Amino acid sequence: MNTHPNFEEFEVGFDIPAKPGMDETDIQTPCLILDLDALERNVKKMGDYAKAHGMRHRAHGKMHKSVDVLKLQQDMGAAIGVCCQKVSEAEVFARGGIKDVMISNQVTEPAKIKRLAEMPKYGCRVLVCVDDPENVKNLSDAAVAAGTQIEALVEVDCGAGRCGVNTTQDVVNIAKLIDAAPGLKFAGIQAYQGAMQHMDLYADREVKLNAAIEQVGDAVQGLKSNGLACDIVGGGGTGSYYFESASNVYNELQCGSYAFMDADYGRILDKDGKRIDDGEWENALFILTTVMSHSKADKAIVDAGLKAQSVDSGLPFIYGRDDVEYIKCSDEHGVVADPNGVLKVNDKLKLVPGHCDPTCNVHDWYVGVRGGKVETVWPVSARGKAY
Amino acid sequence: MNTHPNFEEFEVGFDIPAKPGMDETDIQTPCLILDLDALERNVKKMGDYAKAHGMRHRAHGKMHKSVDVLKLQQDMGAAIGVCCQKVSEAEVFARGGIKDVMISNQVTEPAKIKRLAEMPKYGCRVLVCVDDPENVKNLSDAAVAAGTQIEALVEVDCGAGRCGVNTTQDVVNIAKLIDAAPGLKFAGIQAYQGAMQHMDLYADREVKLNAAIEQVGDAVQGLKSNGLACDIVGGGGTGSYYFESASNVYNELQCGSYAFMDADYGRILDKDGKRIDDGEWENALFILTTVMSHSKADKAIVDAGLKAQSVDSGLPFIYGRDDVEYIKCSDEHGVVADPNGVLKVNDKLKLVPGHCDPTCNVHDWYVGVRGGKVETVWPVSARGKAY
Repeated sequence: MNTHPNFEEFEVGFDIPAKPGMDETDIQTPCLILDLDALERNVKKMGDYAKAHGMRHRAHGKMHKSVDVLKLQQDMGAAIGVCCQKVSEAEVFARGGIKDVMISNQVTEPAKIKRLAEMPKYGCRVLVCVDDPENVKNLSDAAVAAGTQIEALVEVDCGAGRCGVNTTQDVVNIAKLIDAAPGLKFAGIQAYQGAMQHMDLYADREVKLNAAIEQVGDAVQGLKSNGLACDIVGGGGTGSYYFESASNVYNELQCGSYAFMDADYGRILDKDGKRIDDGEWENALFILTTVMSHSKADKAIVDAGLKAQSVDSGLPFIYGRDDVEYIKCSDEHGVVADPNGVLKVNDKLKLVPGHCDPTCNVHDWYVGVRGGKVETVWPVSARGKAY
Repeated sequence: MNTHPNFEEFEVGFDIPAKPGMDETDIQTPCLILDLDALERNVKKMGDYAKAHGMRHRAHGKMHKSVDVLKLQQDMGAAIGVCCQKVSEAEVFARGGIKDVMISNQVTEPAKIKRLAEMPKYGCRVLVCVDDPENVKNLSDAAVAAGTQIEALVEVDCGAGRCGVNTTQDVVNIAKLIDAAPGLKFAGIQAYQGAMQHMDLYADREVKLNAAIEQVGDAVQGLKSNGLACDIVGGGGTGSYYFESASNVYNELQCGSYAFMDADYGRILDKDGKRIDDGEWENALFILTTVMSHSKADKAIVDAGLKAQSVDSGLPFIYGRDDVEYIKCSDEHGVVADPNGVLKVNDKLKLVPGHCDPTCNVHDWYVGVRGGKVETVWPVSARGKAY
């Protein structure tokens, strides 16, 4: 939760990796650090981009799971609210004071639907996605029982092949059910093309997104000819937001990873063939790690392994270093190739994780650093909120 | 921490996935469930095995990170204490009342060494591993300053190629330094062969372990001829414990995964060519997950993705089902192939995770189930204790 701790009561190295005011060199590892200057530049840049292109930006809170980062995205990056993936996660943002909370996902279990229907009582707008006619009735019944209103979007599967309906006819059918259901309000279309975000080439991503735009545009027209207007046509990620912004179909972006960057996103290429972490976005998130053993001449062992990161999208890279390479990851250890033996025990390295979202989810804290000092320590407010 | 919650204050579905006394069908997902009958049989079996073979069993707490599971291993499985990998993790077990706590890993940062040296004040025996002469002096200084005693083992690299020294001469040199250092007590050898545990064939594992036993036996003799006795010669995992037990060199086992099992361990073969999850150990740990979308006829989408498990060692399998298969994992979703369309929304499935250790580390709770009822909810006491 976004209850900021009484740091006085916390023990550095047990409860928390650092306290505000400490030197960066005294941070206990492994832990997540945020380069606050880089983070703020990323956040402002995306906010400016969205405004300049007439788009709303609903920042994806599933990436960072932090009320504090989301507030930064609202204050400095013009975000209009949050989207996230789970009811418990949404509750954290609602309880943390965010006023516009979308679950860009289905909620189907009765107990979760009941919680969802209670959420507007926190004083926020609540939106959810639907891809199943039966779900509409269950959401409606719960909203009526709670005396609240839930806004519902139809999720369109525009290429990811996961949740969402595929045809305009299905979109219209479900939208009509929503529109007619007491306690619900039809809010528009959710259409995130998640399967193309990490394709290396801009042109490949463009082909996929053009197909999505055509499909979503057809659905919007189909709704319009049935008298249903879309307040929201939402989607877009760090690998695609420029396509949605130029589409004349979408009006909300839902970018997440741009704020922190990671190794897997960083290596995709922009229109000019340049890595997106080389100018478009800055690495703001790092796993700080320490060399804990160097008993082999050409190998350093660091203290960040599988419990400090997710390697689903590949290993981390070592930021700012060409002379050493993170080559293997086990539960509590990372093996760093050090062919010239330049590292020594207790040296620190900054890792850029392969995939930021599930990496953030294993940590309790973000240590915000500026100018060599710990400026802030933010809880990963919704860490572990998977249900 | 092992402060059992006042369940009255907890909200099911936000703070916690279930409360004791609930029906199993009301557990909120995704979450970890433990089949308590299977867990207890596994724990008792390993304890009986160790006793029958004259071995001590120091259960590996890094796997489950739970004071409650460790206490079960002590009470029902004859475990003499715990080993774990990090100072903060060790502190959780010490504060939770475990009296014999080994860190089977190096501790090198000054702030962590200081914490380690304070740990005996919790009333427990404290042991740590060393592979670097300079580390001995730092540990000694901290123990003297704290007025405590740290027991130190020399870590031998017996094939994993990670931490640990390689030669008997290096073992003897460091052991002598430990023996001579105020505040320290030489405790023996740590020699875990982590690189062979998951090799499919028993014979392949045996070759690797025989080499390790020869190397460790030589080190023990080298120490003996220098007047240094090993109280502990420790190692052994779920894929090797029978080799160490028959070695006449090792006297402590450090098994972890046997208690819960996982998909990656389960598929290795025993002496008779049978999977070890088919008779040797039972699957006791599951990720309970719910179907949340089935908008494609041949695919069900479940609510357990990368934030409910680690896929570093492969995808989970669906327990007890041949008709459906977990085929893809993204942040919050799993894709389940359902070629015959047998699943429907809100159906529940039990996943056996690819790798138990980092999977447990993303969850806050174990829901202990017996006979269709939630019997207990245990905190993952040392979750996130990576520093």
